[in-house]
Amino acid sequence: MPTDIEISRAAALLPIAEVAAKLDIPPLAVEPYGHHKAKVAVDALPKRDATGKLILVTAINPTPAGEGKTTTSVGLADALSRSGRRTALCLREPSLGPCFGTKGGAAGGGYAQVVPMEDINLHFTGDFHAITSAHNLLAAMIDNHIYWGNALGLDVRRVSWRRVLDMNDRALRDIVHSLGGATNGYPRESGFDITVASEVMAILCLASDLADLEARLGRIIVGYTADRRAVTARDLNAAGAMAALLAQAVKPNLVQTLEGTPAFVHGGPFANIAHGCNSVIATRTALDLADYVVTEAGFGADLGAEKFFDIKCRMAELAPDAVVIVATVRALKMNGGVAKSDLAAPDVAAVHRGGANLMRHLENLAQFGVPAVVAINRFASDTEEEIAAVRAIAAAQACQAVVCTHFSDGGAGAGELAEAVAALADSGSARFMPLYDDRLSLFDKINTVAKRIYRAEEAVADASVLAQLRRWEADGFGDLPVCMAKTQYSFSTDPTRLGAPSGHVVHVREVRLAAGAGFVVAICGEIMTMPGLPRVPAAEGIRVNAAGQIDGLS
Amino acid sequence: MPTDIEISRAAALLPIAEVAAKLDIPPLAVEPYGHHKAKVAVDALPKRDATGKLILVTAINPTPAGEGKTTTSVGLADALSRSGRRTALCLREPSLGPCFGTKGGAAGGGYAQVVPMEDINLHFTGDFHAITSAHNLLAAMIDNHIYWGNALGLDVRRVSWRRVLDMNDRALRDIVHSLGGATNGYPRESGFDITVASEVMAILCLASDLADLEARLGRIIVGYTADRRAVTARDLNAAGAMAALLAQAVKPNLVQTLEGTPAFVHGGPFANIAHGCNSVIATRTALDLADYVVTEAGFGADLGAEKFFDIKCRMAELAPDAVVIVATVRALKMNGGVAKSDLAAPDVAAVHRGGANLMRHLENLAQFGVPAVVAINRFASDTEEEIAAVRAIAAAQACQAVVCTHFSDGGAGAGELAEAVAALADSGSARFMPLYDDRLSLFDKINTVAKRIYRAEEAVADASVLAQLRRWEADGFGDLPVCMAKTQYSFSTDPTRLGAPSGHVVHVREVRLAAGAGFVVAICGEIMTMPGLPRVPAAEGIRVNAAGQIDGLS
Repeated sequence: MPTDIEISRAAALLPIAEVAAKLDIPPLAVEPYGHHKAKVAVDALPKRDATGKLILVTAINPTPAGEGKTTTSVGLADALSRSGRRTALCLREPSLGPCFGTKGGAAGGGYAQVVPMEDINLHFTGDFHAITSAHNLLAAMIDNHIYWGNALGLDVRRVSWRRVLDMNDRALRDIVHSLGGATNGYPRESGFDITVASEVMAILCLASDLADLEARLGRIIVGYTADRRAVTARDLNAAGAMAALLAQAVKPNLVQTLEGTPAFVHGGPFANIAHGCNSVIATRTALDLADYVVTEAGFGADLGAEKFFDIKCRMAELAPDAVVIVATVRALKMNGGVAKSDLAAPDVAAVHRGGANLMRHLENLAQFGVPAVVAINRFASDTEEEIAAVRAIAAAQACQAVVCTHFSDGGAGAGELAEAVAALADSGSARFMPLYDDRLSLFDKINTVAKRIYRAEEAVADASVLAQLRRWEADGFGDLPVCMAKTQYSFSTDPTRLGAPSGHVVHVREVRLAAGAGFVVAICGEIMTMPGLPRVPAAEGIRVNAAGQIDGLS
Repeated sequence: MPTDIEISRAAALLPIAEVAAKLDIPPLAVEPYGHHKAKVAVDALPKRDATGKLILVTAINPTPAGEGKTTTSVGLADALSRSGRRTALCLREPSLGPCFGTKGGAAGGGYAQVVPMEDINLHFTGDFHAITSAHNLLAAMIDNHIYWGNALGLDVRRVSWRRVLDMNDRALRDIVHSLGGATNGYPRESGFDITVASEVMAILCLASDLADLEARLGRIIVGYTADRRAVTARDLNAAGAMAALLAQAVKPNLVQTLEGTPAFVHGGPFANIAHGCNSVIATRTALDLADYVVTEAGFGADLGAEKFFDIKCRMAELAPDAVVIVATVRALKMNGGVAKSDLAAPDVAAVHRGGANLMRHLENLAQFGVPAVVAINRFASDTEEEIAAVRAIAAAQACQAVVCTHFSDGGAGAGELAEAVAALADSGSARFMPLYDDRLSLFDKINTVAKRIYRAEEAVADASVLAQLRRWEADGFGDLPVCMAKTQYSFSTDPTRLGAPSGHVVHVREVRLAAGAGFVVAICGEIMTMPGLPRVPAAEGIRVNAAGQIDGLS
């Protein structure tokens, strides 16, 4: 089989205007970026009701064996398109950081890719750069405000707004800036996060339109005064200019799959300290334009799907119609205790043991009232007995499990999955409800997720964390949902506890208020918001070849 | 008269394909960015000889009264177009930093603007962001190399490569990074410059094509080993990925003037520590496609024109055909000692006194063998006697001086200037030669510029600076031209010495080797490479209005 990049390069791409025409997007609403990418001017679209069926693709807990959530999303969208259904795909944009670090690109793989992959993986339409600029403008305005007299009385020890770069650069995690004397300001400790961890990214992805975006930017809390009064971006008169920097970025990007299915690739917030889904604007636009919309959430269903439901769907009033949970025999075997080097050997017992992970996720998804189907992303080494074991696990939860081979066969390999998903979505059986009520206390919300999704004995937090949550409730932030930041590898906070652990304790180390995005982050374990590069970064192998193509991206 | 932004918004823009068609750019070579911007795929253009006439627009030393170099460039290009001549304009891209700081935008003014001004002033086609990414990728790879064992033996005290952001942020001028413990690397002092000061920016603007770009990137010296061996970007295997990040940025951007004249707006290096001209690729492309190419250099002619000739034209083997030197009565009066508040009062004597500045520049331009014409950018308060005084000064140097009113009249206000410039360019009288020979020693080159252009008594430097220059000569960099960094307000290094000072001494405080860009920077005076924001940044007044337009940009 050819490599991802060979497949991508061999593809005959449709002009972007033709892709837009598949969804009846009027030409005036299509702002081309080159010949195969466009921004869609949402304001120039005819007003419609979002009547499309919304299908979430999530997965079991990720393992080094790989699950193929993105490829399944692409394959499913292509299969729905092939069946004559008017379909759109909604994905997140990849970050430059991991691209030059270890991953070398993220736009699906095999015959299930979005294209042009080189563009999507590099600067794309500039959204992440715009977010970086808007974030850092606010940072510059904070220190400038302090420099010119600090009329708002910011406590320089309590400035929480850091800076961002779309780069894996561990050297910037912790810095002291404003050194060098009086003309450079007041030295203080700070640092950089990667752009996907910016609250501006989360805001862009949750905003319903540009006005809502500006309002949310204005609510960002950048720090506190000595008497603990919050200082916001609005207090600094920064929100307008930040919104101006994001005016293009807020428009969804349109590209296509290898099979020409329209794909909105827009926004990409972290899936730990943020909610990990593509933008609300892209999803709503897709639901306006297509009959079936396939979208994806970050990490496994315990983190990704929970946040998709409890944060994105809650805020945007979206009602998903079906869920696809991606599993592989290999990943289930790893969840059942098999080492990565031993995965090639058939081991039905291990599939059954690891199947506890899948079963737990299916139980959890049922709590949200959305019907699910299991996609078995097939590998060549999978045996029929192993596949049958997965089907049995699904059946125990009254779910169908469908084998798909989109990686090697494109949409043709996900035809059965598409029919199963469409039937589920068309059935009208979904009765979506978030896990908890807005009015629950912040800690009770955390505890609810810990107990009902993670199956922990309880969530615990130090008195200072609980006091912080109560202060925010007193300040009027008690209605916000919680955004859990924990390891993606386990239901617990211990990345080595695979399968379906229970009885553990979730320790909330720290809480952060994202007042603009509109959630309270509960940090449970070590969360890295600025990755480093590996010993040999992918960047060392990336270059433009003699034909003008970019080598090394996958 | 309406404001710049009102004029810009009222303009009926041509679709970018029509602008491209004026220069017979084949549609396949036009990569649209929205409806009114495009990248031109130079490789897809038919091979031609660059037979266009090259016209440089420069100015007297800048004063707070304003000279209008960019508006004159735009007005002249429009006037040449109106006269039926096939014309293209080449300008630099503005930086986001000053846009949110004090300037609020830079794309000409009045009826002499390039459009769409909002796009050009904000992210445009993402070139500066690509440069920021490429620069910072190299920085991350340096610290990552040190982190993983420092096989190249970089002396952490001698790493000269800093980071950049396209932002005015004084807090980042001097930082200590890699704090926070072993996982974050080895703490060291460093800092950020603004993106226009990046050597990557200078490289992009001097490269002849993508292959040359990558070769130049590879030659960047990032620091030295303990035994003073240079370590380059190539040693770190970074140049390929940097070039990949710049593959789109290296293509020239096509926009239009208010009158529909094709304008290449591409690249924007600092005019002090770099050479301050738009990209070589844009200029060459324009010369291929148009019969007359109007371009602009930074600051006054002592800095901008000298570097245009001695760095850009020398490296790119360009032979300019004519020079326009922009002067205003008001600016000459300030050079003649009049305070800004007193400029409205007629003062022919002050024009004559300040005219020494213009005369000196005209003498200097003659040394390069390129014929010049003076453009008197007329203000309402100018009297006929004052205008006549300027004409007399020009005549004393055997130059024509032409009044123009493009700011209020567009191209129609620069018709006489266009005829004078075209006649000069068509005359074939230009005999371009750089000021000094490649083989002169580095310090002799500095001294030549100081004496022959700045009319200094001499250039002086500490022994350590002279020793550094000799080391670079020994290392094979002796053939490079020098890039002078000094105040733009005076021929001397003292910004208060206006007019035509002489007999001063140019003190070279520091020298820097830009081995990738291919010049040695001689720093004479305080040079700021990371600006700060003013007390009330322009950003506070920038926002998207209800009509979706961006207010506050000019």
